Amino acid sequence: MATLLRSLGLPVLLLAVLPAATRVDDPPMRGFTTASARIEREWEAKFKAIPAPARMREAMRRMTLRPHHLGSPFGKEVAEWVRDQFISYGWDTKIERFDVLFPTPKVRVLELVSPTKFTAKLDEPVLADDPTMNQKAEQLPTYNAYSADGDVTAPLVYVNYGVPADYEQLERRGISVKGAIVIARYGGSWRGIKPKVAYEHGAVGALIYSDPRDDGFGEGDVYPAGPYRPKDGVQRGSVLDMPTYPGDPLTPGVGATPAAKRLDRKDAITIMKIPVLPISYADAQPLLAALSGPVAPPAWRGGLPITYRLGPGSARVHLKLEFDWKQTPLYNVIAQLKGSTNPDEWVMRGNHHDGWVNGAEDPISGLVAELEEARALGELVKQGWRPKRTIIYAAWDGEEPSLLGSTEWVEEHVTELRQKGVFYLNTDGNGRGFFGAGGSHALERFVNEVTGDVIDPETKVAVGKRRRSVEDVGGNEEAHTRKDLRIDALGSGSDFTPFLQHAGVPTLNIGFGGEDGGGIYHSIYDSFAWYTRFSDTSFVYGKALAQVAGLMVMRVANADLLPAEFGNLSETSKKYLKEITTLRETTAKEIDEINRQLADGAFAHADDPQHPLQPPKAQAAAPHLNFAPLLNASDELEKNAARFEKAYGSLATSAATAAALAQVNALIRQGDQVMLIPGGLPKRPWYQHALYAPGYYTGYGVKTMPGVREAIEQKEWKLAEEQIGKLAAALERESALVAKAAQLLEAATAASAVP
Amino acid sequence: MATLLRSLGLPVLLLAVLPAATRVDDPPMRGFTTASARIEREWEAKFKAIPAPARMREAMRRMTLRPHHLGSPFGKEVAEWVRDQFISYGWDTKIERFDVLFPTPKVRVLELVSPTKFTAKLDEPVLADDPTMNQKAEQLPTYNAYSADGDVTAPLVYVNYGVPADYEQLERRGISVKGAIVIARYGGSWRGIKPKVAYEHGAVGALIYSDPRDDGFGEGDVYPAGPYRPKDGVQRGSVLDMPTYPGDPLTPGVGATPAAKRLDRKDAITIMKIPVLPISYADAQPLLAALSGPVAPPAWRGGLPITYRLGPGSARVHLKLEFDWKQTPLYNVIAQLKGSTNPDEWVMRGNHHDGWVNGAEDPISGLVAELEEARALGELVKQGWRPKRTIIYAAWDGEEPSLLGSTEWVEEHVTELRQKGVFYLNTDGNGRGFFGAGGSHALERFVNEVTGDVIDPETKVAVGKRRRSVEDVGGNEEAHTRKDLRIDALGSGSDFTPFLQHAGVPTLNIGFGGEDGGGIYHSIYDSFAWYTRFSDTSFVYGKALAQVAGLMVMRVANADLLPAEFGNLSETSKKYLKEITTLRETTAKEIDEINRQLADGAFAHADDPQHPLQPPKAQAAAPHLNFAPLLNASDELEKNAARFEKAYGSLATSAATAAALAQVNALIRQGDQVMLIPGGLPKRPWYQHALYAPGYYTGYGVKTMPGVREAIEQKEWKLAEEQIGKLAAALERESALVAKAAQLLEAATAASAVP
Repeated sequence: MATLLRSLGLPVLLLAVLPAATRVDDPPMRGFTTASARIEREWEAKFKAIPAPARMREAMRRMTLRPHHLGSPFGKEVAEWVRDQFISYGWDTKIERFDVLFPTPKVRVLELVSPTKFTAKLDEPVLADDPTMNQKAEQLPTYNAYSADGDVTAPLVYVNYGVPADYEQLERRGISVKGAIVIARYGGSWRGIKPKVAYEHGAVGALIYSDPRDDGFGEGDVYPAGPYRPKDGVQRGSVLDMPTYPGDPLTPGVGATPAAKRLDRKDAITIMKIPVLPISYADAQPLLAALSGPVAPPAWRGGLPITYRLGPGSARVHLKLEFDWKQTPLYNVIAQLKGSTNPDEWVMRGNHHDGWVNGAEDPISGLVAELEEARALGELVKQGWRPKRTIIYAAWDGEEPSLLGSTEWVEEHVTELRQKGVFYLNTDGNGRGFFGAGGSHALERFVNEVTGDVIDPETKVAVGKRRRSVEDVGGNEEAHTRKDLRIDALGSGSDFTPFLQHAGVPTLNIGFGGEDGGGIYHSIYDSFAWYTRFSDTSFVYGKALAQVAGLMVMRVANADLLPAEFGNLSETSKKYLKEITTLRETTAKEIDEINRQLADGAFAHADDPQHPLQPPKAQAAAPHLNFAPLLNASDELEKNAARFEKAYGSLATSAATAAALAQVNALIRQGDQVMLIPGGLPKRPWYQHALYAPGYYTGYGVKTMPGVREAIEQKEWKLAEEQIGKLAAALERESALVAKAAQLLEAATAASAVP
Repeated sequence: MATLLRSLGLPVLLLAVLPAATRVDDPPMRGFTTASARIEREWEAKFKAIPAPARMREAMRRMTLRPHHLGSPFGKEVAEWVRDQFISYGWDTKIERFDVLFPTPKVRVLELVSPTKFTAKLDEPVLADDPTMNQKAEQLPTYNAYSADGDVTAPLVYVNYGVPADYEQLERRGISVKGAIVIARYGGSWRGIKPKVAYEHGAVGALIYSDPRDDGFGEGDVYPAGPYRPKDGVQRGSVLDMPTYPGDPLTPGVGATPAAKRLDRKDAITIMKIPVLPISYADAQPLLAALSGPVAPPAWRGGLPITYRLGPGSARVHLKLEFDWKQTPLYNVIAQLKGSTNPDEWVMRGNHHDGWVNGAEDPISGLVAELEEARALGELVKQGWRPKRTIIYAAWDGEEPSLLGSTEWVEEHVTELRQKGVFYLNTDGNGRGFFGAGGSHALERFVNEVTGDVIDPETKVAVGKRRRSVEDVGGNEEAHTRKDLRIDALGSGSDFTPFLQHAGVPTLNIGFGGEDGGGIYHSIYDSFAWYTRFSDTSFVYGKALAQVAGLMVMRVANADLLPAEFGNLSETSKKYLKEITTLRETTAKEIDEINRQLADGAFAHADDPQHPLQPPKAQAAAPHLNFAPLLNASDELEKNAARFEKAYGSLATSAATAAALAQVNALIRQGDQVMLIPGGLPKRPWYQHALYAPGYYTGYGVKTMPGVREAIEQKEWKLAEEQIGKLAAALERESALVAKAAQLLEAATAASAVP
């Protein structure tokens, strides 16, 4: 009707007096007819009024009273309390248990043995004003989960972030880590990459420290005076090789049920091969100061008042680690509101409940929003609201060690999930600041719409508008030239990974942040006291998160047509494609340049004999690759996305039947699944999405079009050609799906459009 | 003849057996006929064998025995010793005295008075192993010359480098320096800019400290363990407003002779208006740590183990400075070898002899090379060599306070210098590493030729080739695509300034460095002990410098045609022109963007209310400018440069008469002079070169096409249009000169070419 009014050329002023039902200035609502949208908006308005900051605060206080890591007594209590909350909101709730391998430390020794003696403290002290940090008996000590057992004494070498490019720099300086213990700083990659790459280069142990420039005094006052990392603060964390596969290392690909067949621990390829320990900057400083050898390159230097050197000189350290490799029960809380008309379509939402210690920010700040959404939805049900599709809320256990709860659940239910999964919405903590989202690009338009409907508590503009302004001020030209603000691609680091990258469920990961700096991540200082002093102190962003997440869940649950839009997916694919073709060009040019410079003797002539640099190695020239299949598939997808969008234009005012739209929806919810590559990615079959994966050498950081991109990065040209074929096939499947969906949508709407 | 042989198509192999005189594989020698070049090369070979590292070492030891700053007893001794050396080499030598204003400290007090008490040490302690650093009675204390007297107590504000862009950041954070004392770190601009800009913003005092990240422990071991700045080390230095005019502040534009009319000190606009003091990082740390207020932006943070904050909070400091503003005698050493055929053409070479304290690196490492060149030229004279043109070697006094010796000399002799000056070659210290050069771009080809004829002592390739390799490895594409390696444009910071930018003499400034890092600049630790342990320890780069400089002097002194080449000048002008047209575009775009963002409310929406940022101010849109006169003049210059080069192609084998070439030479030596702008640059008439000036807000850093560029940077659009006119006129004069020179050269060579 709105479209019709426009086509009649009625003056805009007149429209304001039309009844609400036909007002054309209602913002669009993806997937809803005008009539459905009106009803939806009324329920959403009721929903948005419910989430209460005071309740979030109290729930956080309650869940962070004691350490609640995987396997802890209080962790089980938290799971049961969360279950009981869902039950009290009227949800059908259960705890689903798995049994997973989870090592905890028995012995931790780190000593400098030469040229001087120093024994690392490896302990986070109690600071005055925080009532939970003294719970020493229940706290997990500072360690990296899935480090190997080991007892090594070896020279120490500083490797910067410990990524492959850093080893190229070391090699040029004639420094090998073979037989050495490396010390890397946090940052520049996910932590698990550091020992993995160190091991590949022959190291026998690894230390990872938090440099004060990054989240300590360099950034601001340290806790408890300010939010940043105090000198003895340590970032715990997993070093399981999650870019190969996450979840229980003994049960890849299947749920870790009692009956599951388990690998021998020695055969679990994701367990780190060398001992690894995270340390504080107070413990790191004497070790780094003991290094001699070349001065570290400028970009490698941190904030300690020392000359950063590469080592080793006479610096030797003794590292001894021993773990209790026990099977540990894991408690996922699974709650559902059954769908009224489409019960076999699942709209899912999750946040983990386990922390490394008391875990207020990570993860409870996200979980308290999720609970308020659940309470609010329960309230709506009491007022008569019914979701068409089944809504499933999850509170995952064991996310910190390795996305255990979500991964085992997805693996256990993968067949059913691939049939029924419509959407997975993830959060993993929350803070003060700006909205951010990543996920399936067919949902980008949807994200832009929903974030237009929630108000930022600080500035009173829509949270989407605020984020756009941040991008604009930050110099992102698209912020004022592109219709939709781009969402990120997802790598890993939270529970979205099994849903998106293994099961192929359309997925989003959202949250607020950017004004909530601090240095308490994965330490005993991530407490209720810290969070309520330094982050979203009044839980107004908790409320905003509950509003955005709740609206997303409600809209997907009740949409006439699932809210996918393929134009942005197509444009994004073209962007990635441009990146990888450019990557081949720049790689080829770099190789040619280095070979020419070697032939010219440039490295030898430029070398400082007192600080010699080995020249880089000559390399085989990069071949051209046949990108044509990708370009063709991408063009096809663009055309079909436009066709779908044209058909979609008639939906709002059509009388398309639910049955007709159900056929379209059945296709749309397969939109990510058809992009799964049979057999998965090279070296890691568990990861199957053709567009998104955590980088094999970046960890959490995403690699888009990962098969092709990483093959080019690794200069595996034959593999790159193969992966182009697989990626092109995935895009062709997507394109065919969109074409079919467009055809069905044309049929559904054309016959029934209001004349 | 060589050209002729090629045109006859003789096989290349045959050429090798021709007599040396006609060998075509001799490298070219700009400005010499084949016959002259052969003679020149023989003399140059003799010359290159003479400079002796052992003598340079001994001369450095001799001249750094005691502090030798302007006005010091030992400074006068050094001048007299240098004079006597020249005399012993057979040069006609004299000392030329001027009397200049040179303040030295009487009172220096710096105290933190709130929130805690701290009194700055302001003293560089004696460290064990250096025999000269204990000469406390003769050392100038740590201070900035031409600071104002003052006694102020005021809040302290950290201003990063203290350049205008830093104040924009402060303003956005709501921080004013009005009535405050600023503390800036060294770097990011010449030091004198910091108090000048602070004063413009209302500050009442300024401190400048050396951050340890830049030249202290962040870079390597500190002296005496290594070459870097120890915690109490201080960089002395001038803060006279040299970008307005250098030299004696009381005698702008005229030599500071006894008879010269002098300004009242209060009318000397180059004297700083507020008290300024340089301090060590040991003295700076308690002051910086006392600041509260917003945390400094990441790029503003240094290497001290503190949270860098902007202040002021309750931090207040007391700064009291009092100086002895005395007239001081200055002793320039001027030595000459009279030209045999062209005595009224001056080929000049200089390096200063005054240091801030013992000054081994700065300036003696350059002066010892100059002395060895002089000795070697004296030797050649004894063997029968005669320069055609007069060679004048200078050892300048008072460079450190304000280029006093060279500026007063140039001002005193400017009329004669503009008639006779052919070339000025400057050095100002030397170190281990790579050759570098800056200066008149008509001499770029010449630099490339000479540096092809001197061998690098470390790698045994030509020093020019080595530099090219450094650029190549550093990613400078021109290093393998451009015939000549680019030379830098000159800003200021050494004695070339009055020659090039005031008198318009074709000028080069050269030296070696880049492998000689350290942190002793302008401190008591710049000593013979430091230099011989950490820089060019065996004086092999001293020898290389003497070889390059000596060859340059010899070639200009004896060239048939002065070695200018205008193609590179033209190409360089086009490059600068492209930069300034692009600068207008980007400035216009930035203004439009900010205005649009303001209109969109982007700054308000993106703002963090807990760390508020003021939005930038709306600005008037940038007008288009008429660059056509510049583009036309530049095209004209390109054509005429090509015409000159075509005529030049016939020189080597021509029998052009000296008289005919003298007419061309008379034009060539005016090549920079015709680019002087009558009346000079806006706000600073002393600076007249249309292409090169120190930046009004960068200090030493060059601004090319400064009139137009700075007007655009300052958004003074009307001024920019005016300056375009003046610059275009300068380029038109240059173009006309080149056209005339080409015409005369065609006449000189065409009639006489070997058939």
